[in-house]
Amino acid sequence: MGVLASEMGWPSYQVSAVERWRGDEHANQEDCIAEEAPIALMYNGEPHVVMLATPLDLEDFALGFSLTENIVASPREVESVRIYRRAEGIEVRLRIPEARCANAAEKGRNLAGRTGCGLCGARTLQQAMRRPAPVGRGVEVSSQELERALGELSDHQRLNRITGAVHAAAWAVPGQGIRSVREDIGRHNALDKLIGGLARRDIDFATGFVLVTSRASYEMVQKCASVGIGFLAAISAPTGLAVRLAEDTGVTLVGFARGENHVVYANPQRLLHGQA
Amino acid sequence: MGVLASEMGWPSYQVSAVERWRGDEHANQEDCIAEEAPIALMYNGEPHVVMLATPLDLEDFALGFSLTENIVASPREVESVRIYRRAEGIEVRLRIPEARCANAAEKGRNLAGRTGCGLCGARTLQQAMRRPAPVGRGVEVSSQELERALGELSDHQRLNRITGAVHAAAWAVPGQGIRSVREDIGRHNALDKLIGGLARRDIDFATGFVLVTSRASYEMVQKCASVGIGFLAAISAPTGLAVRLAEDTGVTLVGFARGENHVVYANPQRLLHGQA
Repeated sequence: MGVLASEMGWPSYQVSAVERWRGDEHANQEDCIAEEAPIALMYNGEPHVVMLATPLDLEDFALGFSLTENIVASPREVESVRIYRRAEGIEVRLRIPEARCANAAEKGRNLAGRTGCGLCGARTLQQAMRRPAPVGRGVEVSSQELERALGELSDHQRLNRITGAVHAAAWAVPGQGIRSVREDIGRHNALDKLIGGLARRDIDFATGFVLVTSRASYEMVQKCASVGIGFLAAISAPTGLAVRLAEDTGVTLVGFARGENHVVYANPQRLLHGQA
Repeated sequence: MGVLASEMGWPSYQVSAVERWRGDEHANQEDCIAEEAPIALMYNGEPHVVMLATPLDLEDFALGFSLTENIVASPREVESVRIYRRAEGIEVRLRIPEARCANAAEKGRNLAGRTGCGLCGARTLQQAMRRPAPVGRGVEVSSQELERALGELSDHQRLNRITGAVHAAAWAVPGQGIRSVREDIGRHNALDKLIGGLARRDIDFATGFVLVTSRASYEMVQKCASVGIGFLAAISAPTGLAVRLAEDTGVTLVGFARGENHVVYANPQRLLHGQA
């Protein structure tokens, strides 16, 4: 099953026998079912959060989560990431400067997020609604560039092609198309993995844009803005809170991006039309 | 906007001006965008969790969450639910027996879940993988009953018809079709609302089955099993962990349920074919 098969022996999908029915006719078939694994993130030996996630690209996930949750301020602050297989799931142990551990502790140390969970740990409504600083000017993207990236996306969704059940987050650069894709059963996890993978390669977040195969929820905009990504296009709908956060942080928010169609919800200035 | 419009003055959707593009042609239109609101759940005055959810049916949500998270053992243990509008969101204050507060505190008091978040609060991998007791024998459902419920579902998705962006969880009873539907931007929240609404009416969870418009993740099976629902059908795929939990708890798990098609992943005995 190659690179998709497993991380630490935990597979990203399983082949199972199922009954597939059409009316009263059925076939006994094999189905490729996406896996999720409990992933425990620990900072300097202290448990922080347990997430359900697809057990692929966990180093990217750990780094991206640490960045978008503002636990560390730069990728270089993550001194090491070690991954251990346990009976019940996977433990990811990060070492960060002691001074940053206060960030983790502030968010509440013992949390469990699940597949769809964005970010965890606020004690109050005020903390939950953390507002990142406005993003910089960032890229300009032509409608042709957006359409090109949308057209390329499915070729990069390797696990989804097998299972039909996982989200993708992609990084595209004008003139270069899609440069990086990460997949996960949870949309927020896919985005954290993408951001972590880019950060590990020192990619400048002002040079490209993000495509996601899901809705654009509040947390998706928050994660992008928190690292300075100024352009987020989603295949499905945004929420009202996501639109307002995009307006406030200067993020260009595009929804229902499919083929040559899309709807612009906030900051249209970065999306150029009729420039062919 | 009628009953869908708001809870505590927080709307369930907003009408916004958007640019809708098709290639290089565009129209300035109005779009109905689903809202999400930060919902802070508090038990006996102590903050427990902040979730992003659709601000509808919040009493059902509070009761359902309390049941499926095993904070209370029965609906009667929730002595009162009061809902307050705050500047940043909505506070839902539950009063429960003091002895039950230990359950809440055990799960970690200060958590924030977001739209997709299932259940929060485990400190360790072991706690995260909480395994409910096996469900009882429950209903038998014919394939015709399942198809009937699937056919009725969209008529009940009132907020989704307006916004195209929210999930639904439905309760169907053999011979009666769909009896109850709840909607939410988050699939786990929709299920908690459904379960809470049924519990408020003392519905016997062994008498019907649940349909969800989403994937069947681990938490969806866990929530059903925790209150004794023995039959869960999802429109989209299950995860591997969800299938194993369904096998372990005796829950019948059906995926890709669309029209007369469906795939049976666990405990086929409750789904009857060819009985017309």
